[in-house]
Amino acid sequence: MSRFWSDIVHRLVPYVPGEQPALAHPVKLNTNENPYPPSPRVLDAIRAELAGADGSGESLRRYPDPLAKALRATVAAHHGLRPDQVFVGNGSDEVLAHAFQALLKHDKPILFPDISYSFYPTYARLYEVEFNTVPLDDRFEIRVDDYLAQNTPNGGVIFPNPNAPTGHVLPLAEVERLIAGNPDSVVIVDEAYVDFGAQSAIALIDRYPNLLVVHTTSKSRSLAGMRVGFAFGHADLIQALNRVKDSFNSYPLDRLAQAAAAAAYADVDYFEATCARVIASRTRLTASLEALGFEVVPSAANFVFAKHPAHDAADISAKLRAQEIFVRHFNAPRINQHLRISIGTDAECDTLVAALKAIVG
Amino acid sequence: MSRFWSDIVHRLVPYVPGEQPALAHPVKLNTNENPYPPSPRVLDAIRAELAGADGSGESLRRYPDPLAKALRATVAAHHGLRPDQVFVGNGSDEVLAHAFQALLKHDKPILFPDISYSFYPTYARLYEVEFNTVPLDDRFEIRVDDYLAQNTPNGGVIFPNPNAPTGHVLPLAEVERLIAGNPDSVVIVDEAYVDFGAQSAIALIDRYPNLLVVHTTSKSRSLAGMRVGFAFGHADLIQALNRVKDSFNSYPLDRLAQAAAAAAYADVDYFEATCARVIASRTRLTASLEALGFEVVPSAANFVFAKHPAHDAADISAKLRAQEIFVRHFNAPRINQHLRISIGTDAECDTLVAALKAIVG
Repeated sequence: MSRFWSDIVHRLVPYVPGEQPALAHPVKLNTNENPYPPSPRVLDAIRAELAGADGSGESLRRYPDPLAKALRATVAAHHGLRPDQVFVGNGSDEVLAHAFQALLKHDKPILFPDISYSFYPTYARLYEVEFNTVPLDDRFEIRVDDYLAQNTPNGGVIFPNPNAPTGHVLPLAEVERLIAGNPDSVVIVDEAYVDFGAQSAIALIDRYPNLLVVHTTSKSRSLAGMRVGFAFGHADLIQALNRVKDSFNSYPLDRLAQAAAAAAYADVDYFEATCARVIASRTRLTASLEALGFEVVPSAANFVFAKHPAHDAADISAKLRAQEIFVRHFNAPRINQHLRISIGTDAECDTLVAALKAIVG
Repeated sequence: MSRFWSDIVHRLVPYVPGEQPALAHPVKLNTNENPYPPSPRVLDAIRAELAGADGSGESLRRYPDPLAKALRATVAAHHGLRPDQVFVGNGSDEVLAHAFQALLKHDKPILFPDISYSFYPTYARLYEVEFNTVPLDDRFEIRVDDYLAQNTPNGGVIFPNPNAPTGHVLPLAEVERLIAGNPDSVVIVDEAYVDFGAQSAIALIDRYPNLLVVHTTSKSRSLAGMRVGFAFGHADLIQALNRVKDSFNSYPLDRLAQAAAAAAYADVDYFEATCARVIASRTRLTASLEALGFEVVPSAANFVFAKHPAHDAADISAKLRAQEIFVRHFNAPRINQHLRISIGTDAECDTLVAALKAIVG
């Protein structure tokens, strides 16, 4: 606390990211990182950018392209969009922050699920955006009717699909009904986990000028360490994000991040193979957890959300942590008996299952 | 324009960065980049981080340290500070943006010079911070008396030192008088160019809890391409910035940027030699420009600000541009007859001088 702080600083409730343990070999299943490294082409692209035309590292002394034109063109082509339908930011968290300020701050409260990405209320407080949370049903599913403007007038809607931390996916037809039912406000579909088993709403962009879809390279493209995220939508929405971005930081993506992300999108075979491996491991881990008595929410993400009817989740998490196995526990209403477990390699999942067996078996 | 835009988006006046020409070999003296590449140790550090422990590129799949502890410790030690007196952001532009929101938004208008970094009014509009500009004197110098709270009650003060785009430096004793004369508001000294010939206000931090000093690696450490900036000040001020940062983006610096910046600070010899070369080239370029009849503002930065009494600045800039020589011209009151010329290599400066000789000679 300080008299030099702006009023808003006193009212903030900062987001708390998952722990980054400083251990040599943790089994780290707490922040939904990909268990596999990025495509080898990513490393080649970074090394080439780093070397510069003459091998001197010359490129780093120069500002990056503030518009990330090459990267946006690559990603637009990948998704069948035009570059002016693509915004890129310093991780999808920055993209979401700009979207709250640029597109969700209106006269009415915005809506998001009560169980959802816990950064949303933080953004709302930062930009003084009023919000109401809408309860998921008892199976942790979004009820689209609760979000339709005719039922709940709103200043915007945002939700992850698949949802976090549940992993539950809303079918695309239901996503479309939600978008179509809010013609006068922006609907943001946060698809951080879409590549692990859901259908993207990108296919709806040309029909709905109020739709913004947010993606990240941190999960399915194994680039959490490089901080690159995207928004896709009507050019008018993208322009709003660019106006905020150009009033905040002209150059949010460094040269190596731009090169890395473009290379990751270019290697479609590697991307598809990696996603398939994670999905297969999810199936396998789910079966193992169920065999130990866990109830597992059906997941279309690179994590599962599980509870044990006879053991306290915080207690399980603490016992795992003592063995340098990290999962995520949220001390929040309705979900404080669940654990969110990222899908690791099969070997990491086996280590986890063995430890859980000793705890709950 | 779109009905989906928040009110604030309509009112923004985005900053326009200097052009990044897509040419193979431009003489690029328009964005104050360093003419020399970063220390070879920077490239080594990036390659080591990229390889990861096992050479697989493993590190990139993991989130970076959200607190950048290793980098902050290195930079704190370099400046004789504690890590809790150091904030790091995605370029000094992001640091400044957070500072406007966290520390300059109060009941009274903030003050900055009428001729100054043109991003300041943009930030102010983004966060709805009222501001008044204070005219520099006829020699483009800051008059400290104009900024003292007893003369001009204010909600904060920000100014670059050396100033941009003039290059003029305010002596440290005058900087201190300005800080001491505003005990109830935050004074931000934006020292992007300090390493090219000015004394840093970092020396004053332990005496003034209202002082924030902002630095960048983009100029003197040749890392414009990597986007790393800092704020130094009392731990209370740093905490305010962290609260905003953690409500905006947990991981603003990617792994390679953190490694690069730490290595750049570790190589003091390279840093000092590079700054000395730029300073020597500035002296040489200033003499050449004066020989052509230009009036050059005394500069302590890696650029000079010059006007020719007989030739229109926009016209000179256009003629240079036609030869793929880029300098910066601001079409703004009081300075529209000046050119801001970044210090290049001596060879680049010679090319510029030869072209200018043909234009004004």
